[in-house]
Amino acid sequence: MRFFSDNAAPVHPKVMAALAAADTLDTAYDGDARSQALDARFSALFETEVAALWVPTGTAANCLALAALCPPHGGIVCHRDAHIQNDEGGAPEFYTHGAKLFLADGPGAKLTPDAILSVIDAIPNDVHRVQPHAISITNATEYGRVYTPDDVAAIGDLARARGLGLHMDGARFANAMATLGCAPADVTWRAGVDALSFGFVKNGAMSAEVLVFFRPDLATVTRYRRKRAGLLFSKGRYLAAQVLAMLEDDLWIANGRAANGHASALAAAAGDRLVYPVEANEVFLRVTPTEAAALRARGFDFYDWAPGEIRLVTAWDSDAGQVAQLAEAIAAL
Amino acid sequence: MRFFSDNAAPVHPKVMAALAAADTLDTAYDGDARSQALDARFSALFETEVAALWVPTGTAANCLALAALCPPHGGIVCHRDAHIQNDEGGAPEFYTHGAKLFLADGPGAKLTPDAILSVIDAIPNDVHRVQPHAISITNATEYGRVYTPDDVAAIGDLARARGLGLHMDGARFANAMATLGCAPADVTWRAGVDALSFGFVKNGAMSAEVLVFFRPDLATVTRYRRKRAGLLFSKGRYLAAQVLAMLEDDLWIANGRAANGHASALAAAAGDRLVYPVEANEVFLRVTPTEAAALRARGFDFYDWAPGEIRLVTAWDSDAGQVAQLAEAIAAL
Amino acid sequence: MRFFSDNAAPVHPKVMAALAAADTLDTAYDGDARSQALDARFSALFETEVAALWVPTGTAANCLALAALCPPHGGIVCHRDAHIQNDEGGAPEFYTHGAKLFLADGPGAKLTPDAILSVIDAIPNDVHRVQPHAISITNATEYGRVYTPDDVAAIGDLARARGLGLHMDGARFANAMATLGCAPADVTWRAGVDALSFGFVKNGAMSAEVLVFFRPDLATVTRYRRKRAGLLFSKGRYLAAQVLAMLEDDLWIANGRAANGHASALAAAAGDRLVYPVEANEVFLRVTPTEAAALRARGFDFYDWAPGEIRLVTAWDSDAGQVAQLAEAIAAL
Amino acid sequence: MRFFSDNAAPVHPKVMAALAAADTLDTAYDGDARSQALDARFSALFETEVAALWVPTGTAANCLALAALCPPHGGIVCHRDAHIQNDEGGAPEFYTHGAKLFLADGPGAKLTPDAILSVIDAIPNDVHRVQPHAISITNATEYGRVYTPDDVAAIGDLARARGLGLHMDGARFANAMATLGCAPADVTWRAGVDALSFGFVKNGAMSAEVLVFFRPDLATVTRYRRKRAGLLFSKGRYLAAQVLAMLEDDLWIANGRAANGHASALAAAAGDRLVYPVEANEVFLRVTPTEAAALRARGFDFYDWAPGEIRLVTAWDSDAGQVAQLAEAIAAL
Repeated sequence: MRFFSDNAAPVHPKVMAALAAADTLDTAYDGDARSQALDARFSALFETEVAALWVPTGTAANCLALAALCPPHGGIVCHRDAHIQNDEGGAPEFYTHGAKLFLADGPGAKLTPDAILSVIDAIPNDVHRVQPHAISITNATEYGRVYTPDDVAAIGDLARARGLGLHMDGARFANAMATLGCAPADVTWRAGVDALSFGFVKNGAMSAEVLVFFRPDLATVTRYRRKRAGLLFSKGRYLAAQVLAMLEDDLWIANGRAANGHASALAAAAGDRLVYPVEANEVFLRVTPTEAAALRARGFDFYDWAPGEIRLVTAWDSDAGQVAQLAEAIAAL
Repeated sequence: MRFFSDNAAPVHPKVMAALAAADTLDTAYDGDARSQALDARFSALFETEVAALWVPTGTAANCLALAALCPPHGGIVCHRDAHIQNDEGGAPEFYTHGAKLFLADGPGAKLTPDAILSVIDAIPNDVHRVQPHAISITNATEYGRVYTPDDVAAIGDLARARGLGLHMDGARFANAMATLGCAPADVTWRAGVDALSFGFVKNGAMSAEVLVFFRPDLATVTRYRRKRAGLLFSKGRYLAAQVLAMLEDDLWIANGRAANGHASALAAAAGDRLVYPVEANEVFLRVTPTEAAALRARGFDFYDWAPGEIRLVTAWDSDAGQVAQLAEAIAAL
Repeated sequence: MRFFSDNAAPVHPKVMAALAAADTLDTAYDGDARSQALDARFSALFETEVAALWVPTGTAANCLALAALCPPHGGIVCHRDAHIQNDEGGAPEFYTHGAKLFLADGPGAKLTPDAILSVIDAIPNDVHRVQPHAISITNATEYGRVYTPDDVAAIGDLARARGLGLHMDGARFANAMATLGCAPADVTWRAGVDALSFGFVKNGAMSAEVLVFFRPDLATVTRYRRKRAGLLFSKGRYLAAQVLAMLEDDLWIANGRAANGHASALAAAAGDRLVYPVEANEVFLRVTPTEAAALRARGFDFYDWAPGEIRLVTAWDSDAGQVAQLAEAIAAL
Repeated sequence: MRFFSDNAAPVHPKVMAALAAADTLDTAYDGDARSQALDARFSALFETEVAALWVPTGTAANCLALAALCPPHGGIVCHRDAHIQNDEGGAPEFYTHGAKLFLADGPGAKLTPDAILSVIDAIPNDVHRVQPHAISITNATEYGRVYTPDDVAAIGDLARARGLGLHMDGARFANAMATLGCAPADVTWRAGVDALSFGFVKNGAMSAEVLVFFRPDLATVTRYRRKRAGLLFSKGRYLAAQVLAMLEDDLWIANGRAANGHASALAAAAGDRLVYPVEANEVFLRVTPTEAAALRARGFDFYDWAPGEIRLVTAWDSDAGQVAQLAEAIAAL
């Protein structure tokens, strides 16, 4: 019973059906009808004019966004535990041609204006120091915390005041939105976000994420960069089809809600073992090595995250019975 | 009736079936059983130990290969009309961190040792000049010509003698192989090729190519570079599944043969209008603007390639009836 | 007797004196009084507001200029024989993070609007092709030809019409100006030039060139790039001092005139052996191998440039007696 | 009275004399006799075969060294307060094409094996994480601490055990050596150092540092990179001349000793105000804002380094009288 991650879950049946439906000849690259529909579809979702580009991975989405917001000689403030810092194999540095990541702190991988200021105010404004050009936050965070619209707006205000771009890594945006219940606009552009990596792969898609620019002018150069990075699929319709299927009838929200629900069930069983409040689909627990071994002995697979700490991740397709078994096992520790 | 390119054709039913069959939970990234099977499967095909990495696009395959063979301060000899020079939006320069492409000439986009020597012998061996480190050839070429094993071996010998790596862009490797009828090994590593971009997308896959290293040590660093480029899919099994389906029962050869057969039918009708011998699935014809317009008026879509020259491309799924109509229309010009 | 190049000549005594005069404590980097004087001094020279940054080499000046005018995913049109293409070891690609050089033709390494158009009009405006963003010309050219203000203005008009930046490599700007006799403004910003690499090293300085931006806003980011490239000397005053000495009393023009005069003396002796008109300080001659050997036997050192062609370069300090001897030897061939 | 830094001090008279002596025609770039002498001269100094390349700045030396030791997809462990992290405007990332700096801690900017291990042992060995490839230490450190041969050897052993390159930033190597009194070999290659940035500019030169490779094979590719970075001066003899003058009669050690002596005088006056032991030519003092203002009122210029902390730097040419005045002023606080 696999609680390693949500990133290898199967593909939602509606996405598979959409792939089959797209299996006819259409214009290559992003000239097909489905790809061409993305801008309008995401503009409707976000209640403002956006540019929406499919890309195959979250890393690609994040790094194209960072390249749009930060020049090679600049820097990006992110959390010390951010995915772009720790889990993308240096892709931000590759795509930005060597921009520097400035690492800020905060519980649960959440940044605050004060945490960001403590980093950037320590950087004198001269050519000897890499200057900050952007901020990147993750919603839901790498520890399953959620930024509210107010949380984001506080950072957005800071970004505006300092002339910094603001990127949101939304690999688990659906999980955040399922929790927040607000309009997608509220936690993004209305709060100052310039670019969103809108994740679908962890939430039921096969190989499609969308990079949403709330400043559509940023998309022009990004289309060149996407090609230059070898990311412009000749059969782009199969990416667009996945995304459109996920948006249809708010499947993305439904899937996010399902995953979150499973995590809540685990959280309820965990009591004060919880390292962080469970606000999305990740559960971090304090357990001894003996306890971890006991859980594994009962057939549950998961990551050791830190000494005395394990990570459990649920997905859109988690089996309710398995989740119940795990919850029971946790409660019985 | 679309003869623009083979790059937007539908996905072969067996590939679609393989995607459905892969739709179960497995290890993320390339840790799944299918991805792990690639090295052995391609080693068997090539009769030697190779490393085989899936990537989503031909541009990615080509550019990761070039980065493995050429340092940032080096250069790569390719044909003036090579895809890497003209159609990849600067991706070779991105992946290699600025290596230079040296452009050589040759009819039908085919290089010869002499053509290559005329370029590299003009480069003094000092630090002021970018030094050549690799050669890249395309088989079948951008004009549908095929390198024979002897053709490649002559270039391979030159590469060895000069200490240069040799890359083969095989976006249409299946078309070349369908024509050659030799063992895949004969036209690749036995002829001195170090890395092959083995194309499947133009030949029936959805979104998977394979980068084959005949020097498996080159794969180690490339696995880091693939991740760093945002190309490491979390659900890699869906890429591997496509490739395995294409290799099953030599589907790739069958599809290449089908596309080539359609092109041969067009060539037979074209007579001395042919700009190049038709050895794969591309047909370049000399036609006047009026003649081109006449073909379009009958419903055929294709690219104007050069003044007085059009390009017709057939695919694995080209409709024999449409091909016959087009052949008849060409003959009637 | 050395006619290899002007790039290793001694330092002018006034420059040496200026170095000695600068040998007191002053603010580090470019905060010293001399460095701070450059903007005003060059603005006066060019009769408009410019930003002027010292750098130690012509390659650095050229490549910082190109990086200011062209993004990593763009391209720069230059002559096939341009220094940036052939003699800078890939520095343009390094500084621009992989921009592509598009090579145009023209006698004597001079570009014309038609030559440039033949390159850029062949590039479709789509993401698959690297798009041109800038033009780079060399004045005087690598073959000692000079662009007149009208020549440059014709290219400047084209650049404006197509939205391209225009860079002038002025490694031998002094030689060009000595010939032209016009105002420096006439052949630069008034003719559409955005950035000039103003060379001093070949003309009497030790290690200082100046990058002049006629669009001063381009200097801001370039100051960061200069630091990032390891080019920001802590004792910048010694670079600024060299430049200021060269400008004093138009020493730069006097030196350029001296070098040109020596070349003219050689040209007068060469008759129809001249490959190009001699407009600066370089003389290209058609000579047989036997003739070249005869010249060398008399003690003259120079480069073989092409089969049957040699290059002679004079400098600000060429010895008139040696030049006369060489002229006589050429006439006697 | 300036105690800001040692980086803007005048040039030593013997260096100025060497520049004058070099002011004759010689081969361009690094083909002149002086440049060609560097390998042998530094091999003698270090008692082993080394390759020695002049470069104009410490940043250039450091970053060429890092590029030789770390691929673009790798990382370099350095101290959180290292010059390469904080004061080079992102040059390490530029020269390495985006390698990541991993920041370790330690008092006085000194690293220990344990501090390094705490960073690298936290990095799982997989493609998702940038892997460490090198370590960079600064001797004397940014806070004027000195690594002994044993200190370095402990890190060198770790580097070997983990397959990491080891770079020493020796911007103040002379100051360290003046204190250590050992052979230069003892604290470099005998202790496991692969590349040393040997600083001269802070110690009496005008614009020349030397990058010393104790693995001479690393120099080959670096010579290409040096050119590609626009750092290959056409009149390289003026750089080599500076360096040779500094080595003559151990002028470099004498100058380092002079600077250190001035710092010791200040340290003796400072008592328990010292933040770090004074082992080179930098003195960090705890002073209140009022006290700092008092010192400035008496004509002493220096940097505020941190709240309640100032930095005083002496140089080879510091005026003993001024130093005595400052010492007295400090004692009188």
